[in-house]
Amino acid sequence: MKGVVSQEEGREEGGSVTLDDLKKKMAEFARERDWDQFHSPRNLLLALVGEVGELSEIFQWRGEVPKGLPDWKEEEKEHLGEELSDVLLYLVRLADICGVDLGKAALRKVELNALKYPVHQCKGSSKKHTHYSNSNSNTNSNDNTCFLAEHSNNGPSEGL
Amino acid sequence: MKGVVSQEEGREEGGSVTLDDLKKKMAEFARERDWDQFHSPRNLLLALVGEVGELSEIFQWRGEVPKGLPDWKEEEKEHLGEELSDVLLYLVRLADICGVDLGKAALRKVELNALKYPVHQCKGSSKKHTHYSNSNSNTNSNDNTCFLAEHSNNGPSEGL
Amino acid sequence: MKGVVSQEEGREEGGSVTLDDLKKKMAEFARERDWDQFHSPRNLLLALVGEVGELSEIFQWRGEVPKGLPDWKEEEKEHLGEELSDVLLYLVRLADICGVDLGKAALRKVELNALKYPVHQCKGSSKKHTHYSNSNSNTNSNDNTCFLAEHSNNGPSEGL
Amino acid sequence: MKGVVSQEEGREEGGSVTLDDLKKKMAEFARERDWDQFHSPRNLLLALVGEVGELSEIFQWRGEVPKGLPDWKEEEKEHLGEELSDVLLYLVRLADICGVDLGKAALRKVELNALKYPVHQCKGSSKKHTHYSNSNSNTNSNDNTCFLAEHSNNGPSEGL
Repeated sequence: MKGVVSQEEGREEGGSVTLDDLKKKMAEFARERDWDQFHSPRNLLLALVGEVGELSEIFQWRGEVPKGLPDWKEEEKEHLGEELSDVLLYLVRLADICGVDLGKAALRKVELNALKYPVHQCKGSSKKHTHYSNSNSNTNSNDNTCFLAEHSNNGPSEGL
Repeated sequence: MKGVVSQEEGREEGGSVTLDDLKKKMAEFARERDWDQFHSPRNLLLALVGEVGELSEIFQWRGEVPKGLPDWKEEEKEHLGEELSDVLLYLVRLADICGVDLGKAALRKVELNALKYPVHQCKGSSKKHTHYSNSNSNTNSNDNTCFLAEHSNNGPSEGL
Repeated sequence: MKGVVSQEEGREEGGSVTLDDLKKKMAEFARERDWDQFHSPRNLLLALVGEVGELSEIFQWRGEVPKGLPDWKEEEKEHLGEELSDVLLYLVRLADICGVDLGKAALRKVELNALKYPVHQCKGSSKKHTHYSNSNSNTNSNDNTCFLAEHSNNGPSEGL
Repeated sequence: MKGVVSQEEGREEGGSVTLDDLKKKMAEFARERDWDQFHSPRNLLLALVGEVGELSEIFQWRGEVPKGLPDWKEEEKEHLGEELSDVLLYLVRLADICGVDLGKAALRKVELNALKYPVHQCKGSSKKHTHYSNSNSNTNSNDNTCFLAEHSNNGPSEGL
């Protein structure tokens, strides 16, 4: 089926999975079980929050964790992959139920972030990242364009 | 560049955006700004939680919201798309930094969920969805295979 | 012990429990188990997020829920009480570990909110509560003082 | 009024603030503004999630943070106190609207946790805290009673 990666292929190359593939799989999954009735926007949002909680539990007692999780067991990484996936799947489903084209919105957001955080002004700006307040940047944005934002002045919180 | 959808194309067909596209864009975005130094697993996780909070704020005072958000203004839907995207982008970045193939993990999780929630047993099961406790299903799983789970007995919280 | 409500008393009158009582109980609990070593600010914050996830799971598939939870079973309400408590206990512990006087801060915040949301201007303002964006209130705050804020312009998200 | 600490007093001794004091202040605050109409359980829960997001933003780019926040500016600690308070105030309000006696529930939960994590078995157990999975403890609980739980087998996530 167009736009759907076969799972064997997916197994080899997860990176080629499209948001559309996941959206379709989720819609089919719900339809088969007659669960559309439960998939309202706020139900899905709360389910997403629940999964973010499970993701956090994986990291909660570990202190700082190095990139690549060098000392994690295979089963631990697998569990992490499952929780990351649960968050992704509910996010994709929520966007679908809300009528939002998530892939389109994500590409657009990357562009907005590029405008919001100009390379020459934000390069290596730890000031941006360690600034204490993500919310009172009315003042900060004056002296640090890294805080500039359109739909939010929570610049740092959207800093990618 | 291979595996990267041009943005014009993306504008037309967001669904064709792959997780790999987003992963590469995020990595490039961070590298250009020398922000890799800030993108540790737990920093990114907390940033993700921050974005989930902003997503929740959009829905917090609305009461139940119908599918498709029929009565939302265009600017409201746009803002929703941005917050959904922020969550997605941090999720993709977190998976990348942790060395998890998110697309592969997501396809595998969909398969696990299909095994966990057999169509013939879970079809339209509101019992599953309204069961009060997502955690004490040791007992529940006995009388309701919809609660069966492998890495979690929080069946409902993973019910898709 | 001064400032500690006996549990029998607590059983009768939970409302008389002070934040100090809970802080002391948490500190004692950790000390007895030699868990202070794990109670760093970010570990506790992630544990808090995990508990908020469990709290959300209780409400996730229910759709809108009436005040007082009239149709909930006793065991469901008890489970809710446990999850609300887990969030509270980690919050109290996090504040303690960060050296924040939570009770003092909470009383001060109530005062700040009273200044931020003047009764005569905010009374019954559904506009405030349904306003689509909690973040771009630079413009909104101009025509709606209900959005006015000090440390945050996410007025609605702090609207109590 | 009995059970209500005057704010001057509160200023001196935040620890003596009771959950009942905060519950009453929140109820009065909402009533004065005619906001009870917006304070449904799920609205308040989503508002709580929003505040947890703001709390996370404060810690998101800092890496590990030492206890007591020795190197934080006064304004940073003040901002932290406000966000911790926002979470607390919505939590207290949510419990009130749900008809849960939060103080009573919290004291009971502390007792349950003491039973769940016996001092002699859990003392200094980093195994408990670093165990990778908070969910598949059916097996784990067999070889580590620290995982034992009643309403949840997410032992670690409730480990205090």
